[in-house]
Amino acid sequence: MEWIGEPVSERGVREQRFDVQCEGRRVPGILWRPDASAEDAPLVLLGHGGSLHKRADYILATARRLARHHGISSIAIDGPAHGDRRADGGRDPGKVGADFDDAWREPSVTDDIVADWKTALDAAQAELGSGPVGYFGLSMGTMMGVPLIAAEPRVSAAVLGLMGLWGPTRARLSADAARVTCPVRFLAQWDDEIVPRDRVLELFDQLGTRRKSLHAHPGKHVEVPPDEMRGVAEFLAAQLGRS
Amino acid sequence: MEWIGEPVSERGVREQRFDVQCEGRRVPGILWRPDASAEDAPLVLLGHGGSLHKRADYILATARRLARHHGISSIAIDGPAHGDRRADGGRDPGKVGADFDDAWREPSVTDDIVADWKTALDAAQAELGSGPVGYFGLSMGTMMGVPLIAAEPRVSAAVLGLMGLWGPTRARLSADAARVTCPVRFLAQWDDEIVPRDRVLELFDQLGTRRKSLHAHPGKHVEVPPDEMRGVAEFLAAQLGRS
Repeated sequence: MEWIGEPVSERGVREQRFDVQCEGRRVPGILWRPDASAEDAPLVLLGHGGSLHKRADYILATARRLARHHGISSIAIDGPAHGDRRADGGRDPGKVGADFDDAWREPSVTDDIVADWKTALDAAQAELGSGPVGYFGLSMGTMMGVPLIAAEPRVSAAVLGLMGLWGPTRARLSADAARVTCPVRFLAQWDDEIVPRDRVLELFDQLGTRRKSLHAHPGKHVEVPPDEMRGVAEFLAAQLGRS
Repeated sequence: MEWIGEPVSERGVREQRFDVQCEGRRVPGILWRPDASAEDAPLVLLGHGGSLHKRADYILATARRLARHHGISSIAIDGPAHGDRRADGGRDPGKVGADFDDAWREPSVTDDIVADWKTALDAAQAELGSGPVGYFGLSMGTMMGVPLIAAEPRVSAAVLGLMGLWGPTRARLSADAARVTCPVRFLAQWDDEIVPRDRVLELFDQLGTRRKSLHAHPGKHVEVPPDEMRGVAEFLAAQLGRS
């Protein structure tokens, strides 16, 4: 892990930018850890949604909740052609979104992002020890998460959702979903205007694990109720033995 | 309320059989109340599933949890042609189930059971005071609950599920669902072998409230995970202001 800048501490959580190198790619990330962190405590991987970045509001809020309420560290990395992987820094969702389809049509994109996550996880565990690992990612966070979890036995619980057998990588998603065997909470928005509801239910259906639950609410793609979002950290903490 | 037999107290919960009379029908019920019950505390109505009765295991468990953990009283009544409404006492699920279709094909069945519930609620509130009211009922409990909630403004939160736009009263269920405006948690079993999944999702879709969430799990009709069943009392207590 190459640290970028100085760590910043706020109310018991230390946040620090890092880069890792993976197959010639610079992978920009953030590590959040509780000031009082135990060796081999759980670690959660936070995958942001499309057109956003590794420090999107709900990613930051979840990282802080995991650290403050549950003593759990977390890392986020920027997605393909997102955030600090971009020359423009990726802070304009319109510009980033315009590149979404091109980035995800690259034949190697899924394998590359899985490799990036594994490299970041290796680096974080070298820093923090090898506790249980969780994953949280909605929408594009699920496009990254399903292949990662299928390929990465260290991930033992996940919150996914707002994605379906849909988009440029749907065939890959379908195949990888069947290989997901850890407990999964899957969020769906009943009036999702981006990913059709039936496609979302298909992806839930396809998940290979029997330990899965679907939590669906009325509302559009980005209108997951605040209580459900707050419940993400609680669910992962319980699954990872830190409730 | 006409009390039947003596109350029985067990670990802080007093249980007593009662009858109420409604339009010439004898309606058999049970009241559970915490030993330390406050005036105007919440009350939950517990509607059992088809072929079961008012003291089915999960009804009893939910009543006790509501009383012990949340200080909430509850009542259950036997459904149409179920339990103590029957000459045989309704303890043989096979026999009771054989009469299910006939009972629910009676044109007046929905109106009758709604009236029975209202009468039981009136009687319970005369006893306990007029706190907030919740409803819990799965499967046939939802066939009773949806029309009741649509007609009964006192019910301000509900857990429903394992039922769809299906069965002899599906048209009535559809119309009444649209009139449900209180918060609802709706349980579905992904591999339900009795009520087809699509019909279940249609009923969830049809519920008029925006404050609804769908919790779906793999498994057959009666395989709702224990954690989800335990969560029923917690959800209702939170909604009724007693979490």
